[in-house]
Amino acid sequence: MTRTIVASATREIVIGFDQPFCVIGERINPTGRKKLAAEMQAGNFETVIKDALEQAAAGATMLDVNAGVTAVDPNATEPALLVQTIEIVQNLVDLPISIDSSVTAAIEAGLKVAKGRPLVNSVTGEEEKLEAILPLVKKYNVPVVAISNDETGISMDPDVRFAVAKKIVERAMDHGIKPEDVVVDPLVMPIGALGDAGRQVFALLRRLREELKVNTTCGLSNISFGLPHRHGINGAFIPMVIGAGMTSAIMNPCRPQEMEAVRGANVLNGTDKDCMNWIRTYKDYKPGEHAAPAPVPVTAPGDAGAAGGRRRGGREARRAQG
Amino acid sequence: MTRTIVASATREIVIGFDQPFCVIGERINPTGRKKLAAEMQAGNFETVIKDALEQAAAGATMLDVNAGVTAVDPNATEPALLVQTIEIVQNLVDLPISIDSSVTAAIEAGLKVAKGRPLVNSVTGEEEKLEAILPLVKKYNVPVVAISNDETGISMDPDVRFAVAKKIVERAMDHGIKPEDVVVDPLVMPIGALGDAGRQVFALLRRLREELKVNTTCGLSNISFGLPHRHGINGAFIPMVIGAGMTSAIMNPCRPQEMEAVRGANVLNGTDKDCMNWIRTYKDYKPGEHAAPAPVPVTAPGDAGAAGGRRRGGREARRAQG
Repeated sequence: MTRTIVASATREIVIGFDQPFCVIGERINPTGRKKLAAEMQAGNFETVIKDALEQAAAGATMLDVNAGVTAVDPNATEPALLVQTIEIVQNLVDLPISIDSSVTAAIEAGLKVAKGRPLVNSVTGEEEKLEAILPLVKKYNVPVVAISNDETGISMDPDVRFAVAKKIVERAMDHGIKPEDVVVDPLVMPIGALGDAGRQVFALLRRLREELKVNTTCGLSNISFGLPHRHGINGAFIPMVIGAGMTSAIMNPCRPQEMEAVRGANVLNGTDKDCMNWIRTYKDYKPGEHAAPAPVPVTAPGDAGAAGGRRRGGREARRAQG
Repeated sequence: MTRTIVASATREIVIGFDQPFCVIGERINPTGRKKLAAEMQAGNFETVIKDALEQAAAGATMLDVNAGVTAVDPNATEPALLVQTIEIVQNLVDLPISIDSSVTAAIEAGLKVAKGRPLVNSVTGEEEKLEAILPLVKKYNVPVVAISNDETGISMDPDVRFAVAKKIVERAMDHGIKPEDVVVDPLVMPIGALGDAGRQVFALLRRLREELKVNTTCGLSNISFGLPHRHGINGAFIPMVIGAGMTSAIMNPCRPQEMEAVRGANVLNGTDKDCMNWIRTYKDYKPGEHAAPAPVPVTAPGDAGAAGGRRRGGREARRAQG
């Protein structure tokens, strides 16, 4: 059974086919958030702190941290800003971190300070990326998100996207990285622009699970881009991707409709044992309260944290494992 | 491609893998509704009329009609009451009917008066049932729901349930009924009592689609029996069964959360062309309005009625087709 292990300083989470869906909180990311970008550049982390606490309270399994503010020279400025952001977040909430950057130096800087076993987000099938990121993934013994595009861009042919994913997994193995430490993102297109986007992803997810036997993730809300009532589309997409084998997603855990879909799909997929998380979350639910179910306490063995709690020791422990 | 055709007097609907999910409205059924049973026994059809109109307005594809009021001798009383109920419903709304009874004489009486091409609900794998119902299905050239239990009851082993479904399809063929006119109900158990109920159904649905190549249905809300916030579980179950290949369900179309899940899954499954039904339904949707999306007009080419509209001529036309 494929098990991708991520951890904070004190909490270990398993991503896997028999585990509750792993919700990677997407909020701490200045891309497309001008106000947040300006704040972070000015050394103001109020929104980062608020986003970290809210996502944890809403039931996120782990938190993506991106500090890609638009800068003249990201290579010079982003590593320090990402380090600062990671340190603030991991001192605030006890959730594993996903280190999200397109700047290799920022990823390495993040890996040096992240406690536990963070996820690296991401590598692609581009030669330059593969040879920059995979050695770091091996050196720090961490899992990595593999995005199934390469130098030629994102193929509209799902077979090509599968082939790119397979190439990344094989290249990772060449670097001594186990397939279970590669979490493939099959790439989700907007269904409003590409009517086949849903069926493509479902078919890809089944192949990734059955043939490559890897864990998977995606930027979930891409699917509903451009459509009205996006939460409704997202809320239907989540159970469908979980049914097709997806094991994590980068998404906004502060959206009750999406999180309800995750919790419901966990029940139906048999990963919410005895429906305990569902019952605890919705036992006092009243009709019409759809927009505000009771959040799961941060420190409880929550949505995807059933495996959590085992103490772990940061980079030293990570290396000892490798 | 498997196509199960049902029709009202003037409207034809195709149930199939490439069609919008077929929502069979479950409300016109006195089972467990004492007040409705008493009304129907007293010849009062006010609630029947209200339920027919509301379900049609909410987007039902077809309507199940059951007149199984508890009586001393159902064989004597149910046929006439079912006929009366069917005639009221089909004169009121232009949707295909599902004739729902455990009394063979009532099913035959219903078949004599139902316009278009109704669905018979249901036959099981029990010898007595098979030999009572299948000749009627053949005689009237209509499709039938096949429930995958037999004399030994409902097996907890999905392989046995698949074998029962296969037996019914084969027996139907012996009677000259095409497999595309058998809609299999794999039987849905409550997930609160049987943690494996979801995965069992998903696996069964895939086999029914890939091996038997039949359309499928289920009593949808069984899955959430006994749990809090049942609409949330139902709303996650719908996209998952649609993703696994289910093509219809007997359910309550007056529940906005469930119908939103159906519409969302149709978009993602590629059966809501250009997302037109989604956009029409939710274009003016405001956050917090989850409980009351705009219903689709009854006469519009609605949720699952895109194939509708072709004129058909009742029993004569049905027989001519056979």
